[in-house]
Amino acid sequence: MYFDSHLHSEGLGFSDLKKMAEMGIKEVCSLSFYPIKPNFPQTMIDAFRKLIEFETLRCEAAGVKMYPAVGVHPRCIPPDYDTVLKYLESGEWRAFGEIGLEVASDEEVDVLTRQLEIAKKLDVPCIIHTPRSNKRAVTERILEILEKIGFPDELAVIDHVNFENLDMVVKKDYWIGLTVQPGKLSPDDVVRIVSEHGAERFMLNSDVGYRDTEITTVAVAAKRLEDSVGGDVARKVAYKNAREFLRL
Amino acid sequence: MYFDSHLHSEGLGFSDLKKMAEMGIKEVCSLSFYPIKPNFPQTMIDAFRKLIEFETLRCEAAGVKMYPAVGVHPRCIPPDYDTVLKYLESGEWRAFGEIGLEVASDEEVDVLTRQLEIAKKLDVPCIIHTPRSNKRAVTERILEILEKIGFPDELAVIDHVNFENLDMVVKKDYWIGLTVQPGKLSPDDVVRIVSEHGAERFMLNSDVGYRDTEITTVAVAAKRLEDSVGGDVARKVAYKNAREFLRL
Repeated sequence: MYFDSHLHSEGLGFSDLKKMAEMGIKEVCSLSFYPIKPNFPQTMIDAFRKLIEFETLRCEAAGVKMYPAVGVHPRCIPPDYDTVLKYLESGEWRAFGEIGLEVASDEEVDVLTRQLEIAKKLDVPCIIHTPRSNKRAVTERILEILEKIGFPDELAVIDHVNFENLDMVVKKDYWIGLTVQPGKLSPDDVVRIVSEHGAERFMLNSDVGYRDTEITTVAVAAKRLEDSVGGDVARKVAYKNAREFLRL
Repeated sequence: MYFDSHLHSEGLGFSDLKKMAEMGIKEVCSLSFYPIKPNFPQTMIDAFRKLIEFETLRCEAAGVKMYPAVGVHPRCIPPDYDTVLKYLESGEWRAFGEIGLEVASDEEVDVLTRQLEIAKKLDVPCIIHTPRSNKRAVTERILEILEKIGFPDELAVIDHVNFENLDMVVKKDYWIGLTVQPGKLSPDDVVRIVSEHGAERFMLNSDVGYRDTEITTVAVAAKRLEDSVGGDVARKVAYKNAREFLRL
Protein backbone atom coordinates (compact mmCIF):
# COMPACT_ATOMS: atom_id res chain seq x y z
CA MET A 1 0.00 0.00 0.00
CA TYR A 2 1.46 3.33 -1.10
CA PHE A 3 0.77 6.99 -0.36
CA ASP A 4 1.28 9.64 -3.06
CA SER A 5 1.91 12.72 -0.93
CA HIS A 6 1.53 15.34 -3.66
CA LEU A 7 -0.66 15.21 -6.74
CA HIS A 8 -3.48 17.14 -8.39
CA SER A 9 -6.28 14.59 -8.74
CA GLU A 10 -8.48 17.18 -10.46
CA GLY A 11 -6.32 16.75 -13.56
CA LEU A 12 -6.82 12.98 -13.62
CA GLY A 13 -9.56 10.89 -15.18
CA PHE A 14 -11.55 8.20 -13.42
CA SER A 15 -9.52 5.51 -15.24
CA ASP A 16 -6.30 7.08 -13.95
CA LEU A 17 -7.58 6.98 -10.37
CA LYS A 18 -8.66 3.36 -10.72
CA LYS A 19 -5.26 2.45 -12.18
CA MET A 20 -3.53 4.08 -9.20
CA ALA A 21 -5.66 2.06 -6.81
CA GLU A 22 -4.90 -1.14 -8.74
CA MET A 23 -1.17 -0.41 -8.46
CA GLY A 24 -1.47 -0.09 -4.67
CA ILE A 25 -1.59 3.71 -4.43
CA LYS A 26 -4.55 3.64 -2.08
CA GLU A 27 -4.01 6.99 -0.35
CA VAL A 28 -3.10 10.37 -1.79
CA CYS A 29 -2.91 14.01 -0.83
CA SER A 30 -4.51 16.15 -3.56
CA LEU A 31 -3.35 19.75 -3.60
CA SER A 32 -5.22 22.87 -4.70
CA PHE A 33 -4.10 24.44 -7.96
CA TYR A 34 -6.01 26.53 -10.48
CA PRO A 35 -4.58 26.15 -13.97
CA ILE A 36 -5.09 29.80 -14.94
CA LYS A 37 -4.68 32.94 -12.85
CA PRO A 38 -8.22 33.48 -11.49
CA ASN A 39 -9.84 36.89 -11.92
CA PHE A 40 -11.72 36.53 -8.62
CA PRO A 41 -10.76 35.36 -5.11
CA GLN A 42 -14.18 33.69 -4.81
CA THR A 43 -13.08 31.20 -7.47
CA MET A 44 -10.47 29.79 -5.09
CA ILE A 45 -12.99 29.43 -2.26
CA ASP A 46 -15.33 27.40 -4.46
CA ALA A 47 -12.33 25.44 -5.78
CA PHE A 48 -11.46 24.42 -2.19
CA ARG A 49 -15.09 23.40 -1.64
CA LYS A 50 -15.05 21.38 -4.87
CA LEU A 51 -11.86 19.59 -3.82
CA ILE A 52 -13.26 18.73 -0.38
CA GLU A 53 -16.94 18.09 -1.17
CA PHE A 54 -16.75 16.47 -4.61
CA GLU A 55 -13.23 15.35 -5.46
CA THR A 56 -12.77 13.28 -2.26
CA LEU A 57 -15.91 11.28 -3.19
CA ARG A 58 -14.80 10.84 -6.80
CA CYS A 59 -11.43 9.47 -5.65
CA GLU A 60 -13.12 7.21 -3.11
CA ALA A 61 -15.40 5.79 -5.80
CA ALA A 62 -12.25 4.83 -7.74
CA GLY A 63 -10.72 3.14 -4.69
CA VAL A 64 -8.39 5.95 -3.60
CA LYS A 65 -8.64 7.60 -0.19
CA MET A 66 -7.89 11.27 -0.87
CA TYR A 67 -6.86 13.87 1.68
CA PRO A 68 -7.38 17.42 0.35
CA ALA A 69 -4.91 20.27 0.81
CA VAL A 70 -6.11 23.82 0.24
CA GLY A 71 -4.19 27.03 -0.37
CA VAL A 72 -3.01 29.56 -2.90
CA HIS A 73 -0.27 28.36 -5.27
CA PRO A 74 2.20 31.10 -6.28
CA ARG A 75 1.26 30.69 -9.97
CA CYS A 76 -2.46 31.34 -9.39
CA ILE A 77 -2.70 34.20 -6.94
CA PRO A 78 -6.06 35.96 -7.45
CA PRO A 79 -6.65 39.70 -7.03
CA ASP A 80 -7.88 40.66 -3.51
CA TYR A 81 -6.30 37.53 -2.09
CA ASP A 82 -7.05 38.81 1.42
CA THR A 83 -10.53 37.34 0.88
CA VAL A 84 -9.02 33.87 0.39
CA LEU A 85 -6.67 34.22 3.38
CA LYS A 86 -9.58 35.22 5.64
CA TYR A 87 -11.47 32.16 4.44
CA LEU A 88 -8.47 29.94 5.22
CA GLU A 89 -8.15 31.54 8.65
CA SER A 90 -11.76 30.75 9.51
CA GLY A 91 -11.78 27.04 8.64
CA GLU A 92 -10.47 23.66 9.72
CA TRP A 93 -8.10 21.95 7.32
CA ARG A 94 -6.17 18.74 6.84
CA ALA A 95 -3.26 20.53 5.12
CA PHE A 96 -2.27 23.66 3.20
CA GLY A 97 -0.94 23.16 -0.31
CA GLU A 98 0.22 23.76 -2.85
CA ILE A 99 1.81 26.85 -1.38
CA GLY A 100 5.33 28.13 -1.97
CA LEU A 101 7.30 30.41 -4.23
CA GLU A 102 7.74 30.36 -8.00
CA VAL A 103 9.72 33.53 -8.83
CA ALA A 104 9.71 34.94 -5.28
CA SER A 105 8.00 38.24 -6.15
CA ASP A 106 6.88 40.47 -3.28
CA GLU A 107 3.30 39.30 -3.82
CA GLU A 108 4.30 35.63 -3.72
CA VAL A 109 6.34 36.19 -0.56
CA ASP A 110 3.38 37.94 1.09
CA VAL A 111 0.94 35.18 0.14
CA LEU A 112 3.29 32.42 1.33
CA THR A 113 4.22 34.18 4.57
CA ARG A 114 0.64 34.86 5.51
CA GLN A 115 -0.48 31.32 4.72
CA LEU A 116 2.36 29.97 6.87
CA GLU A 117 1.35 32.30 9.71
CA ILE A 118 -2.23 31.01 9.51
CA ALA A 119 -0.95 27.43 9.41
CA LYS A 120 1.22 28.00 12.49
CA LYS A 121 -1.72 29.52 14.36
CA LEU A 122 -4.15 26.76 13.32
CA ASP A 123 -1.54 23.94 13.51
CA VAL A 124 -1.92 22.85 9.87
CA PRO A 125 0.74 20.88 7.91
CA CYS A 126 2.02 22.75 4.82
CA ILE A 127 3.22 21.36 1.50
CA ILE A 128 5.68 23.87 0.08
CA HIS A 129 6.53 24.02 -3.64
CA THR A 130 10.07 24.80 -4.81
CA PRO A 131 10.29 25.84 -8.46
CA ARG A 132 12.11 24.42 -11.46
CA SER A 133 13.97 27.65 -12.30
CA ASN A 134 16.36 29.36 -9.95
CA LYS A 135 15.77 26.52 -7.51
CA ARG A 136 18.60 27.16 -5.05
CA ALA A 137 17.94 30.87 -4.59
CA VAL A 138 14.19 30.42 -4.22
CA THR A 139 14.61 27.51 -1.79
CA GLU A 140 16.95 29.72 0.26
CA ARG A 141 14.23 32.35 0.36
CA ILE A 142 11.63 29.81 1.52
CA LEU A 143 13.91 28.58 4.29
CA GLU A 144 14.50 32.18 5.44
CA ILE A 145 10.75 32.82 5.61
CA LEU A 146 10.15 29.65 7.61
CA GLU A 147 12.88 30.58 10.07
CA LYS A 148 11.80 34.20 10.36
CA ILE A 149 8.31 33.23 11.51
CA GLY A 150 9.55 30.33 13.64
CA PHE A 151 7.57 27.80 11.68
CA PRO A 152 7.45 24.36 13.37
CA ASP A 153 9.70 21.83 11.61
CA GLU A 154 7.15 19.03 11.69
CA LEU A 155 4.49 21.14 9.96
CA ALA A 156 6.45 21.74 6.73
CA VAL A 157 7.45 19.56 3.81
CA ILE A 158 9.83 21.20 1.36
CA ASP A 159 8.74 19.64 -1.91
CA HIS A 160 10.21 18.86 -5.34
CA VAL A 161 13.65 18.67 -3.72
CA ASN A 162 16.33 17.42 -6.11
CA PHE A 163 20.12 17.41 -6.44
CA GLU A 164 20.10 21.18 -6.92
CA ASN A 165 18.79 21.99 -3.45
CA LEU A 166 19.04 18.76 -1.47
CA ASP A 167 22.19 19.83 0.45
CA MET A 168 20.45 22.99 1.70
CA VAL A 169 17.30 21.18 2.82
CA VAL A 170 18.90 18.19 4.57
CA LYS A 171 20.67 20.61 6.92
CA LYS A 172 17.27 21.67 8.30
CA ASP A 173 14.69 19.53 10.11
CA TYR A 174 11.65 19.84 7.84
CA TRP A 175 10.12 16.95 5.95
CA ILE A 176 11.44 16.53 2.39
CA GLY A 177 9.28 15.71 -0.64
CA LEU A 178 10.82 13.75 -3.53
CA THR A 179 8.93 14.03 -6.80
CA VAL A 180 9.32 10.96 -9.04
CA GLN A 181 8.44 12.04 -12.55
CA PRO A 182 10.17 12.18 -15.94
CA GLY A 183 12.21 15.39 -15.94
CA LYS A 184 12.31 15.44 -12.13
CA LEU A 185 13.66 12.51 -10.09
CA SER A 186 13.94 8.91 -11.33
CA PRO A 187 13.36 5.85 -9.13
CA ASP A 188 17.16 5.38 -9.16
CA ASP A 189 17.64 8.95 -7.90
CA VAL A 190 15.30 8.15 -5.02
CA VAL A 191 17.28 5.02 -4.13
CA ARG A 192 20.50 7.04 -4.17
CA ILE A 193 19.09 9.85 -1.99
CA VAL A 194 17.44 7.59 0.56
CA SER A 195 20.47 5.29 0.76
CA GLU A 196 22.67 8.27 1.53
CA HIS A 197 20.43 10.26 3.87
CA GLY A 198 18.17 7.66 5.51
CA ALA A 199 14.43 7.29 5.35
CA GLU A 200 13.36 9.39 8.33
CA ARG A 201 12.31 12.63 6.65
CA PHE A 202 11.53 11.77 3.03
CA MET A 203 8.17 11.21 1.39
CA LEU A 204 7.51 10.26 -2.24
CA ASN A 205 5.09 11.85 -4.64
CA SER A 206 4.30 11.99 -8.35
CA ASP A 207 3.03 15.59 -8.71
CA VAL A 208 0.78 14.27 -11.50
CA GLY A 209 -1.98 16.50 -12.76
CA TYR A 210 -3.42 17.92 -15.93
CA ARG A 211 -0.85 16.80 -18.48
CA ASP A 212 0.77 13.69 -17.04
CA THR A 213 0.54 10.08 -18.04
CA GLU A 214 3.10 8.58 -15.63
CA ILE A 215 0.68 8.33 -12.75
CA THR A 216 2.03 5.38 -10.75
CA THR A 217 5.62 6.52 -10.20
CA VAL A 218 5.33 6.27 -6.40
CA ALA A 219 4.57 2.56 -6.68
CA VAL A 220 7.43 2.05 -9.15
CA ALA A 221 9.95 3.88 -6.95
CA ALA A 222 8.70 2.10 -3.83
CA LYS A 223 9.26 -1.30 -5.46
CA ARG A 224 12.76 -0.23 -6.49
CA LEU A 225 13.44 0.76 -2.87
CA GLU A 226 12.03 -2.53 -1.56
CA ASP A 227 14.42 -4.45 -3.81
CA SER A 228 17.51 -2.36 -3.09
CA VAL A 229 17.25 -0.82 0.39
CA GLY A 230 14.58 -2.99 1.98
CA GLY A 231 10.88 -3.08 2.77
CA ASP A 232 11.04 -1.03 5.98
CA VAL A 233 12.70 1.91 4.24
CA ALA A 234 10.28 1.70 1.32
CA ARG A 235 7.31 1.60 3.67
CA LYS A 236 8.52 4.72 5.49
CA VAL A 237 9.09 6.95 2.46
CA ALA A 238 6.23 5.59 0.34
CA TYR A 239 3.58 5.39 3.04
CA LYS A 240 4.27 5.99 6.72
CA ASN A 241 6.02 9.36 6.63
CA ALA A 242 3.23 11.03 4.66
CA ARG A 243 0.67 9.67 7.12
CA GLU A 244 2.71 10.90 10.08
CA PHE A 245 3.13 14.35 8.51
CA LEU A 246 -0.63 14.60 7.83
CA ARG A 247 -1.51 13.20 11.28
CA LEU A 248 -3.46 10.22 9.99
CA MET B 1 -12.39 11.09 -37.96
CA TYR B 2 -15.14 11.50 -35.36
CA PHE B 3 -16.66 14.43 -33.46
CA ASP B 4 -17.90 13.96 -29.89
CA SER B 5 -20.51 16.71 -29.67
CA HIS B 6 -21.00 16.68 -25.90
CA LEU B 7 -18.47 15.82 -23.20
CA HIS B 8 -16.82 17.37 -20.17
CA SER B 9 -13.11 17.19 -20.91
CA GLU B 10 -12.29 18.74 -17.52
CA GLY B 11 -13.17 15.40 -15.94
CA LEU B 12 -10.75 13.49 -18.18
CA GLY B 13 -7.07 12.77 -17.75
CA PHE B 14 -4.39 13.41 -20.34
CA SER B 15 -4.23 9.66 -21.10
CA ASP B 16 -7.99 9.66 -21.76
CA LEU B 17 -7.65 12.54 -24.21
CA LYS B 18 -4.77 10.83 -26.00
CA LYS B 19 -6.77 7.61 -26.21
CA MET B 20 -9.70 9.48 -27.77
CA ALA B 21 -7.39 10.98 -30.38
CA GLU B 22 -5.90 7.55 -31.13
CA MET B 23 -9.41 6.16 -31.65
CA GLY B 24 -10.14 8.89 -34.21
CA ILE B 25 -12.12 11.25 -31.97
CA LYS B 26 -10.16 14.27 -33.15
CA GLU B 27 -12.74 16.97 -32.44
CA VAL B 28 -14.96 17.49 -29.43
CA CYS B 29 -17.25 20.06 -27.90
CA SER B 30 -16.48 20.40 -24.17
CA LEU B 31 -19.34 21.80 -22.11
CA SER B 32 -19.21 23.87 -18.94
CA PHE B 33 -20.27 22.11 -15.77
CA TYR B 34 -19.27 22.72 -12.15
CA PRO B 35 -19.49 19.54 -10.09
CA ILE B 36 -20.80 21.29 -6.95
CA LYS B 37 -23.24 24.16 -6.62
CA PRO B 38 -20.93 27.19 -6.54
CA ASN B 39 -21.30 29.71 -3.72
CA PHE B 40 -20.28 32.58 -6.01
CA PRO B 41 -21.18 33.64 -9.56
CA GLN B 42 -17.56 34.68 -10.11
CA THR B 43 -16.59 31.01 -9.94
CA MET B 44 -18.49 30.33 -13.15
CA ILE B 45 -16.84 33.24 -14.95
CA ASP B 46 -13.37 31.94 -14.10
CA ALA B 47 -14.52 28.42 -14.99
CA PHE B 48 -15.46 29.64 -18.49
CA ARG B 49 -12.04 31.33 -18.78
CA LYS B 50 -10.32 28.13 -17.65
CA LEU B 51 -12.22 26.08 -20.24
CA ILE B 52 -11.35 28.51 -23.04
CA GLU B 53 -7.83 29.59 -22.09
CA PHE B 54 -6.39 26.41 -20.57
CA GLU B 55 -8.50 23.38 -21.41
CA THR B 56 -8.46 23.97 -25.18
CA LEU B 57 -4.64 23.91 -25.08
CA ARG B 58 -4.52 20.80 -22.91
CA CYS B 59 -6.82 18.97 -25.34
CA GLU B 60 -4.78 20.19 -28.30
CA ALA B 61 -1.57 18.89 -26.70
CA ALA B 62 -3.23 15.46 -26.54
CA GLY B 63 -4.25 15.61 -30.19
CA VAL B 64 -7.89 16.66 -29.74
CA LYS B 65 -9.29 19.88 -31.18
CA MET B 66 -11.70 21.12 -28.52
CA TYR B 67 -14.47 23.67 -29.00
CA PRO B 68 -15.64 25.12 -25.67
CA ALA B 69 -19.27 25.71 -24.74
CA VAL B 70 -20.05 28.01 -21.81
CA GLY B 71 -23.19 28.42 -19.74
CA VAL B 72 -24.97 27.63 -16.51
CA HIS B 73 -26.07 24.00 -16.09
CA PRO B 74 -29.33 23.60 -14.13
CA ARG B 75 -27.57 21.55 -11.44
CA CYS B 76 -24.98 24.25 -10.68
CA ILE B 77 -26.81 27.56 -10.64
CA PRO B 78 -24.87 30.00 -8.44
CA PRO B 79 -26.45 32.71 -6.27
CA ASP B 80 -26.69 36.12 -8.00
CA TYR B 81 -26.66 34.40 -11.39
CA ASP B 82 -27.47 37.74 -13.04
CA THR B 83 -23.72 38.40 -12.83
CA VAL B 84 -23.02 35.34 -14.98
CA LEU B 85 -25.77 36.17 -17.48
CA LYS B 86 -24.39 39.70 -17.90
CA TYR B 87 -20.96 38.21 -18.55
CA LEU B 88 -22.41 35.86 -21.17
CA GLU B 89 -24.27 38.76 -22.79
CA SER B 90 -21.06 40.76 -23.15
CA GLY B 91 -18.89 38.14 -24.86
CA GLU B 92 -18.39 36.19 -28.07
CA TRP B 93 -18.95 32.45 -27.86
CA ARG B 94 -18.74 29.30 -29.94
CA ALA B 95 -21.69 27.71 -28.14
CA PHE B 96 -23.75 27.74 -24.95
CA GLY B 97 -23.84 24.54 -22.92
CA GLU B 98 -24.56 22.67 -20.92
CA ILE B 99 -27.81 24.51 -20.37
CA GLY B 100 -31.26 22.99 -19.89
CA LEU B 101 -33.60 21.81 -17.17
CA GLU B 102 -33.12 19.17 -14.48
CA VAL B 103 -36.23 19.41 -12.28
CA ALA B 104 -37.75 22.44 -14.04
CA SER B 105 -37.90 24.66 -10.94
CA ASP B 106 -38.77 28.35 -11.43
CA GLU B 107 -35.09 29.22 -11.01
CA GLU B 108 -34.00 26.68 -13.62
CA VAL B 109 -36.65 27.91 -16.05
CA ASP B 110 -35.51 31.51 -15.56
CA VAL B 111 -31.83 30.64 -16.08
CA LEU B 112 -32.55 28.57 -19.20
CA THR B 113 -34.94 31.13 -20.71
CA ARG B 114 -32.55 34.01 -20.22
CA GLN B 115 -29.60 32.09 -21.63
CA LEU B 116 -31.68 31.19 -24.69
CA GLU B 117 -32.69 34.83 -25.12
CA ILE B 118 -29.03 35.86 -25.02
CA ALA B 119 -28.16 33.10 -27.50
CA LYS B 120 -30.89 34.22 -29.88
CA LYS B 121 -29.67 37.81 -29.67
CA LEU B 122 -25.99 36.87 -30.13
CA ASP B 123 -26.69 34.02 -32.62
CA VAL B 124 -25.04 31.30 -30.51
CA PRO B 125 -25.76 27.54 -30.87
CA CYS B 126 -27.14 25.98 -27.65
CA ILE B 127 -26.69 22.45 -26.30
CA ILE B 128 -29.72 21.69 -24.17
CA HIS B 129 -29.73 18.98 -21.50
CA THR B 130 -32.78 16.80 -20.87
CA PRO B 131 -32.72 14.97 -17.53
CA ARG B 132 -32.83 11.31 -16.58
CA SER B 133 -35.88 11.62 -14.32
CA ASN B 134 -39.25 12.82 -15.49
CA LYS B 135 -37.78 13.05 -18.98
CA ARG B 136 -40.98 13.48 -21.01
CA ALA B 137 -42.50 16.21 -18.87
CA VAL B 138 -39.25 18.18 -18.64
CA THR B 139 -38.58 17.83 -22.39
CA GLU B 140 -42.11 19.14 -23.01
CA ARG B 141 -41.29 22.15 -20.85
CA ILE B 142 -38.06 22.81 -22.75
CA LEU B 143 -39.87 22.66 -26.09
CA GLU B 144 -42.50 25.11 -24.78
CA ILE B 145 -39.80 27.56 -23.70
CA LEU B 146 -38.06 27.35 -27.09
CA GLU B 147 -41.33 27.98 -28.91
CA LYS B 148 -42.41 30.79 -26.60
CA ILE B 149 -39.27 32.81 -27.35
CA GLY B 150 -39.23 31.87 -31.01
CA PHE B 151 -35.82 30.24 -30.75
CA PRO B 152 -34.27 29.43 -34.16
CA ASP B 153 -34.40 25.68 -34.91
CA GLU B 154 -30.86 25.49 -36.21
CA LEU B 155 -29.40 26.99 -33.02
CA ALA B 156 -30.64 24.26 -30.65
CA VAL B 157 -29.70 20.65 -30.06
CA ILE B 158 -32.00 18.77 -27.69
CA ASP B 159 -29.58 16.41 -26.01
CA HIS B 160 -29.64 13.02 -24.27
CA VAL B 161 -32.70 12.12 -26.33
CA ASN B 162 -33.73 8.47 -25.89
CA PHE B 163 -36.76 6.27 -26.46
CA GLU B 164 -38.65 8.10 -23.72
CA ASN B 165 -38.75 11.46 -25.51
CA LEU B 166 -37.67 10.74 -29.10
CA ASP B 167 -41.24 10.89 -30.51
CA MET B 168 -41.73 14.39 -29.08
CA VAL B 169 -38.43 15.73 -30.38
CA VAL B 170 -38.54 14.29 -33.91
CA LYS B 171 -41.78 16.23 -34.51
CA LYS B 172 -39.83 19.49 -34.15
CA ASP B 173 -36.98 20.78 -36.30
CA TYR B 174 -34.15 21.15 -33.77
CA TRP B 175 -30.96 19.11 -33.87
CA ILE B 176 -31.06 15.94 -31.76
CA GLY B 177 -28.21 14.70 -29.56
CA LEU B 178 -27.82 10.94 -28.97
CA THR B 179 -25.70 10.04 -25.96
CA VAL B 180 -23.94 6.69 -26.30
CA GLN B 181 -23.04 5.54 -22.81
CA PRO B 182 -23.80 2.56 -20.56
CA GLY B 183 -27.18 3.30 -18.98
CA LYS B 184 -28.10 5.69 -21.80
CA LEU B 185 -28.09 4.59 -25.46
CA SER B 186 -26.16 1.62 -26.85
CA PRO B 187 -24.54 1.57 -30.32
CA ASP B 188 -27.40 -0.72 -31.38
CA ASP B 189 -29.95 1.84 -30.18
CA VAL B 190 -28.22 4.44 -32.33
CA VAL B 191 -28.38 2.19 -35.38
CA ARG B 192 -32.08 1.61 -34.77
CA ILE B 193 -32.89 5.32 -34.33
CA VAL B 194 -30.87 6.51 -37.30
CA SER B 195 -32.19 3.73 -39.56
CA GLU B 196 -35.72 4.75 -38.71
CA HIS B 197 -35.44 8.54 -38.74
CA GLY B 198 -32.58 9.30 -41.14
CA ALA B 199 -29.25 10.97 -40.43
CA GLU B 200 -30.13 14.61 -41.10
CA ARG B 201 -30.63 15.95 -37.58
CA PHE B 202 -28.76 13.58 -35.26
CA MET B 203 -25.35 14.01 -33.68
CA LEU B 204 -23.54 11.53 -31.42
CA ASN B 205 -21.87 12.19 -28.11
CA SER B 206 -20.49 10.36 -25.09
CA ASP B 207 -21.29 12.85 -22.29
CA VAL B 208 -18.14 11.54 -20.56
CA GLY B 209 -16.77 13.45 -17.64
CA TYR B 210 -15.67 13.02 -14.06
CA ARG B 211 -16.65 9.42 -13.41
CA ASP B 212 -16.64 7.72 -16.79
CA THR B 213 -14.33 5.15 -18.27
CA GLU B 214 -16.15 4.45 -21.56
CA ILE B 215 -14.66 7.42 -23.35
CA THR B 216 -14.62 6.29 -26.98
CA THR B 217 -18.29 5.39 -27.45
CA VAL B 218 -18.73 7.80 -30.37
CA ALA B 219 -16.09 5.91 -32.34
CA VAL B 220 -17.64 2.56 -31.43
CA ALA B 221 -21.15 3.65 -32.44
CA ALA B 222 -19.86 5.27 -35.64
CA LYS B 223 -18.16 2.02 -36.68
CA ARG B 224 -21.38 0.11 -36.00
CA LEU B 225 -23.24 2.60 -38.20
CA GLU B 226 -20.61 2.31 -40.96
CA ASP B 227 -21.08 -1.45 -40.99
CA SER B 228 -24.87 -1.45 -40.87
CA VAL B 229 -26.23 1.74 -42.45
CA GLY B 230 -23.23 2.93 -44.43
CA GLY B 231 -20.31 5.34 -44.29
CA ASP B 232 -22.22 8.44 -45.43
CA VAL B 233 -24.75 8.14 -42.64
CA ALA B 234 -22.05 7.46 -40.06
CA ARG B 235 -20.06 10.45 -41.25
CA LYS B 236 -23.06 12.73 -40.89
CA VAL B 237 -24.07 11.78 -37.35
CA ALA B 238 -20.56 11.18 -36.01
CA TYR B 239 -18.85 14.18 -37.60
CA LYS B 240 -20.52 16.49 -40.11
CA ASN B 241 -23.73 17.41 -38.29
CA ALA B 242 -21.90 18.59 -35.17
CA ARG B 243 -19.60 20.73 -37.32
CA GLU B 244 -22.54 22.21 -39.19
CA PHE B 245 -24.38 22.95 -35.93
CA LEU B 246 -21.29 24.65 -34.46
CA ARG B 247 -20.56 26.50 -37.73
CA LEU B 248 -17.11 25.03 -38.25
